[in-house]
Amino acid sequence: MARIPIEQLIACLARLFEQAGVAPPRAMRLAELYAQASADGVYSHGVHFVPHLLRWLRERTITETGRDPELVAAFGAIERYDGHLGLGALNAEFCMARATALADTHGVGCVALRRTSHWGRPGNFGWWAAERGYLAICWTNTPANMAAWGGDANVVGNNPIVFAVPGKDGRHLVLDMAMSQFSFGRLETHRAEAHPLPVPGGMDAGGAPTTDAAAILNGGKVWPIGFWKGSGLAMVLDAFAAILSDGADTGALTPGAGDAGVSQVFIAFDPRRLDGGDAADRTADVIRAFAEKSPASRYPGQSALEHRRRSATEGVYVRDDVWAALRAAGS
Amino acid sequence: MARIPIEQLIACLARLFEQAGVAPPRAMRLAELYAQASADGVYSHGVHFVPHLLRWLRERTITETGRDPELVAAFGAIERYDGHLGLGALNAEFCMARATALADTHGVGCVALRRTSHWGRPGNFGWWAAERGYLAICWTNTPANMAAWGGDANVVGNNPIVFAVPGKDGRHLVLDMAMSQFSFGRLETHRAEAHPLPVPGGMDAGGAPTTDAAAILNGGKVWPIGFWKGSGLAMVLDAFAAILSDGADTGALTPGAGDAGVSQVFIAFDPRRLDGGDAADRTADVIRAFAEKSPASRYPGQSALEHRRRSATEGVYVRDDVWAALRAAGS
Repeated sequence: MARIPIEQLIACLARLFEQAGVAPPRAMRLAELYAQASADGVYSHGVHFVPHLLRWLRERTITETGRDPELVAAFGAIERYDGHLGLGALNAEFCMARATALADTHGVGCVALRRTSHWGRPGNFGWWAAERGYLAICWTNTPANMAAWGGDANVVGNNPIVFAVPGKDGRHLVLDMAMSQFSFGRLETHRAEAHPLPVPGGMDAGGAPTTDAAAILNGGKVWPIGFWKGSGLAMVLDAFAAILSDGADTGALTPGAGDAGVSQVFIAFDPRRLDGGDAADRTADVIRAFAEKSPASRYPGQSALEHRRRSATEGVYVRDDVWAALRAAGS
Repeated sequence: MARIPIEQLIACLARLFEQAGVAPPRAMRLAELYAQASADGVYSHGVHFVPHLLRWLRERTITETGRDPELVAAFGAIERYDGHLGLGALNAEFCMARATALADTHGVGCVALRRTSHWGRPGNFGWWAAERGYLAICWTNTPANMAAWGGDANVVGNNPIVFAVPGKDGRHLVLDMAMSQFSFGRLETHRAEAHPLPVPGGMDAGGAPTTDAAAILNGGKVWPIGFWKGSGLAMVLDAFAAILSDGADTGALTPGAGDAGVSQVFIAFDPRRLDGGDAADRTADVIRAFAEKSPASRYPGQSALEHRRRSATEGVYVRDDVWAALRAAGS
């Protein structure tokens, strides 16, 4: 099992992105974002995702535009951008940064982004905001990949959403979750490792509830979190993203094409503008009370922080076959 | 089974609220909000809830302040209010209206409210915004009433959240959901009617998954939606509400006291400020595509609209015992 020093990993990924036509400073930042996801334990949306991204760049499903998203409309604390089908992770980081800049001026800021592509690990943009003292919410729509409760056809996306709250000493609250009980990345990991899911994650091809990721992926259906609740939440998140960005809704997107064309929303809040108080102090109180009363439970972001610290000292875990392929491609 | 014309129902409730010390115009609006919840089929948070509210007013767990929440801090598009432990539904409606006024000026507006009380049916405030053309999100924290995933103690609230998107001809998308798979109101309804839940809603006192609402309420535990995901979402919503309002977090609230002291967040967006386009047109497209591809599924808000239309022609359903008690109290 390979554990790679993060600097070595970033250098390898940056070289691959440059070979794929991404300009050097952008290739470096893209490499950092994918390496960070793996360092935080989100392997499926980190280094293990890079081969997909490289393929999409090769096939021009995603194009390197070489520039930031384009402002197409603005009013006060809300702005709308076009991502020109460029690199989703860089487009998203730009928009979260803009939302925090709007929050500096207005206390709250909202940026809607249309025509972007797969943004990698959603939590990256929540961590970015929390590390700078902002509360943040962001989400994306996706092509249809989930049945609505009560129906058979895939009509809703699993539309991941992130909530981030700054905490002390890196102990930020960052929730990063898809509307499916398990993300497709996690299902693929369980299938690859032949591990059962901890709770039923959907139905097999025959309609029976199952903890077998392979049975769900091979002709079955993923379940939304909370059944009808998660499918309803997916639908309203999609409508918000499409309306605020004047972009594509889930029904207008094509499954399996690098999520090209998706719509996203980024909202940042700066409570320091209201009272100069330190949100991190309150977050620390909330986490402390939670940990004291429920020591066996985890707060959102706790696992990422533990992985991050271990990765810093022991290197970042990368599956041997992926690491070998990436090194071969980059040499 | 009683079906009461809505005007008669509102008049009865307004009289009861006036008797409880609520000033006439406020008593009328309060009556409308609780009657509307029942008219929309949300009985547990509508007229059936009024006896609890009257008791809290009698016991002074909730006080009629006779006034709007008090502004305590403001910066640009974000404002913070103190609800002075007054009537939650009126405080919440005021704050949603303020959020939309801020959205008029800034495109997006955020209002945080502390020291308020149980707001009744959360969806009321989403419908209010959607009917006026705004997209909106609002949520509340609650006292601890749910174990975090992996733990035994009740450390998180079920923190209901609302997402609202304006649609055509009353077909708004309005999602109104608690972080528990079933709200306590719905569990109480199932217990009263001895109907099993459609999916397991938690565990009985022995820790076994169950569809028996009584077993969950009598010493069992409610489950969060999506297990660890819903408990994580409850925790971040709580932190947001406490930090933005500088109010109580779940750990600081006392269970079973009219939710006195809870913290809430209201966010409104006005996409008309960006492009003058009609969000309702897009919502109609989204609903149409959904209904065509998944005819057996329901969109969030569909059931409320159907109930509302039936209530307008046939009267509002009120359980016989509740209606008899309310009429006796008001005579």
